Amino acid sequence: MSEDIKDKIENMGAAALSASRVLATLGTDKKNQILLAMADKLLSDSDSIIEANKVDISAAEENGLTNAMIDRLRLDESRVEAIADSIRQVASLPDPVGQIMDDWERPNGMQIRQIRVPIGVIGIIYESRPNVTSDAAVLCLKTGNATILRGGKESIHSNKAIAASLQSGGEVAGLPKNCIQLIPFTERESVNHLAQMDQYLDLIIPRGGAGLIEAVVSMARMPVIKHYDGICHLYIDDECDSDMARKLVIDSKTQKPSVCNALETLLVSETIAESWLPLIAADLIEKDVELRCDEKSLTIIGDSALAAKDEDWRAEYLDLILSIKVVKDINEAIDHINEYGSHHSDCIVTGSDRKAQQFMSEIDSATVFWNVSTRFSDGEEFGFGAEIGISTDKLHARGPMALRELTSYKYLITGNGQTKA
Amino acid sequence: MSEDIKDKIENMGAAALSASRVLATLGTDKKNQILLAMADKLLSDSDSIIEANKVDISAAEENGLTNAMIDRLRLDESRVEAIADSIRQVASLPDPVGQIMDDWERPNGMQIRQIRVPIGVIGIIYESRPNVTSDAAVLCLKTGNATILRGGKESIHSNKAIAASLQSGGEVAGLPKNCIQLIPFTERESVNHLAQMDQYLDLIIPRGGAGLIEAVVSMARMPVIKHYDGICHLYIDDECDSDMARKLVIDSKTQKPSVCNALETLLVSETIAESWLPLIAADLIEKDVELRCDEKSLTIIGDSALAAKDEDWRAEYLDLILSIKVVKDINEAIDHINEYGSHHSDCIVTGSDRKAQQFMSEIDSATVFWNVSTRFSDGEEFGFGAEIGISTDKLHARGPMALRELTSYKYLITGNGQTKA
Repeated sequence: MSEDIKDKIENMGAAALSASRVLATLGTDKKNQILLAMADKLLSDSDSIIEANKVDISAAEENGLTNAMIDRLRLDESRVEAIADSIRQVASLPDPVGQIMDDWERPNGMQIRQIRVPIGVIGIIYESRPNVTSDAAVLCLKTGNATILRGGKESIHSNKAIAASLQSGGEVAGLPKNCIQLIPFTERESVNHLAQMDQYLDLIIPRGGAGLIEAVVSMARMPVIKHYDGICHLYIDDECDSDMARKLVIDSKTQKPSVCNALETLLVSETIAESWLPLIAADLIEKDVELRCDEKSLTIIGDSALAAKDEDWRAEYLDLILSIKVVKDINEAIDHINEYGSHHSDCIVTGSDRKAQQFMSEIDSATVFWNVSTRFSDGEEFGFGAEIGISTDKLHARGPMALRELTSYKYLITGNGQTKA
Repeated sequence: MSEDIKDKIENMGAAALSASRVLATLGTDKKNQILLAMADKLLSDSDSIIEANKVDISAAEENGLTNAMIDRLRLDESRVEAIADSIRQVASLPDPVGQIMDDWERPNGMQIRQIRVPIGVIGIIYESRPNVTSDAAVLCLKTGNATILRGGKESIHSNKAIAASLQSGGEVAGLPKNCIQLIPFTERESVNHLAQMDQYLDLIIPRGGAGLIEAVVSMARMPVIKHYDGICHLYIDDECDSDMARKLVIDSKTQKPSVCNALETLLVSETIAESWLPLIAADLIEKDVELRCDEKSLTIIGDSALAAKDEDWRAEYLDLILSIKVVKDINEAIDHINEYGSHHSDCIVTGSDRKAQQFMSEIDSATVFWNVSTRFSDGEEFGFGAEIGISTDKLHARGPMALRELTSYKYLITGNGQTKA
């Protein structure tokens, strides 16, 4: 069985590479026609996709998954429509492939152009909702990349139905065979084989928990773009607008606490801690937020808060919990964030231009905010139209990762017989 | 000893991370002053560097290294001067750090800027000449990155002397401690420890043979930018200028055959093979180039050529050897290059605009040339001023990798209290 899985995954890799070479030659209009045909086919396959989903739901119920997990798995007519709408949205976005990034002439007359091209074959490993099958495949398709998808075993039947619908719907409109392939095996070893296959895959993107990402990083021979935790901070400077600061804390922490760009740690200048912390503590407690405080903030806030432990400064709660620390000044805030944060999204609230500049320069994070909620660290909010995730890596893609980040480039050089000798 | 090496390398990693945070805050002028001070110190340390080099040379002679290898190792006054000149050249180049890559406003009034920042800590593993110690360190320093260098054991004394001179010379002008560190251990396990240390290193760049790169890829937990072989092709189309085609073959193959952008395989359209191949064969044989031919070209060229074996189509000779194949048309040429090439640098020689466009679109290589010698695939020739290598990867950096490719970016977002709710 093991050799069988390995062979089949290698065959998928070879097929994806062939497909990617044809896909790379398709123009934007053709790719958009394919995307629209895929959206139509997905809608017309809605019943059979929902039937396949019912098999996953039954298994989930038998296996005792929580109601929240089962709800994330579930597909109904409106959710299938939402997936199709997302595909149409991607069709409407500008195509980065073929864009000229740079263009210059050398003294010897050579013309150099740097143009965006597809990356090639992208492996996507995910644990989450079945809509990721479509979202990931269509973003890759729009940018001319072939995909090999490997979803979680909880949604295997739904994923297979969606992937098959997308591929067959696209083929009618000219999608080359094997551009969208889903690994049909649920064994963990299929991930190992995929991650080792650098003769076919140019990139692998794990989307899911830290355990999954860690496993892929350990095994992968090709580049991995990681989407790790967001341990996001707000630093409230003494020169801030007190009301704006309260508004930004509440929005960053409570508007959607389960996501990676939600606030996890609040740092407050000691100059205003006595006057301002009681106000924000009352706001937060009213919103049912549990407060975990360092010694100084605990003294100020009092019994309604808990004492923070060491691990709280490195915690991504993804819940209505907030750690709070009083810092001496902006320098201590910056040191704390660079040391304990996850380099994802961090914000300073201040009226001081000088301190804002220092913060933005010295904080080593993908997105650094000044007087804006951390919840705006998101491809849609950036205006990218769609995103495949928020990269916590520094190479190739950092922060919200959208269509442009799914491309590579090449140099095209035109001349009239230039020689070096 | 093993634990000892591991601990020491981990300490170097932690020190590099601290250093990189200070280094990232230095302005361009300060970094350039440091570079110039390093160049001065290197010159004033010339005698002691040459003394250290003599220890390496003696060991090389004892160990029976070839004269060519010993020559590559050797440092004399003029070579130390050349290293210092390179440092001054890097100081004179524009600093990419702080450049605004993109800049836009969102409907809610948020201002988004995408700016170039240093990557952080870069590990560089190399086997080659001792000048790489300086070249790699100063390119990283110019871009605000701390480096951990691990050179080959043949040049360990030279490397130590150069690294110490650079670091101490820089410190006088304000270089933070530990920005340039050289691993003093020659055991292979030091590479393993370095490659596993993703808590400190953001990137690792192996420069050397395929064995070294393969070892690093297998072990590394952080991104690796690889500089693999150049199996470069020229395709001679039937609509070409015959003389230009001959000139480009000779230049690409013979001007410097030992480098990765030299020509290795010549593909010729069958329409002109009978008339053109005898001309270029005579040119090449006059230049002492050994010809390894497929059946058709062997029939045409005759006894002065050898029959190619299967492995010739995947060979990077780096020598006065050329494989030659007759192809039916441009489509067969493209298929051959994408299949057997190394996606490094490939060229079409043609007068047809249509065929040139097809070739440039369909060839999946870092640099694709039209009527230009492949020898121009080089950071200097591109006008980049300096390069750390030629990446055969597609992620982050592809083709000549210079200062810009040694940076990452971050998003800076400025607002006035924007919330998502």
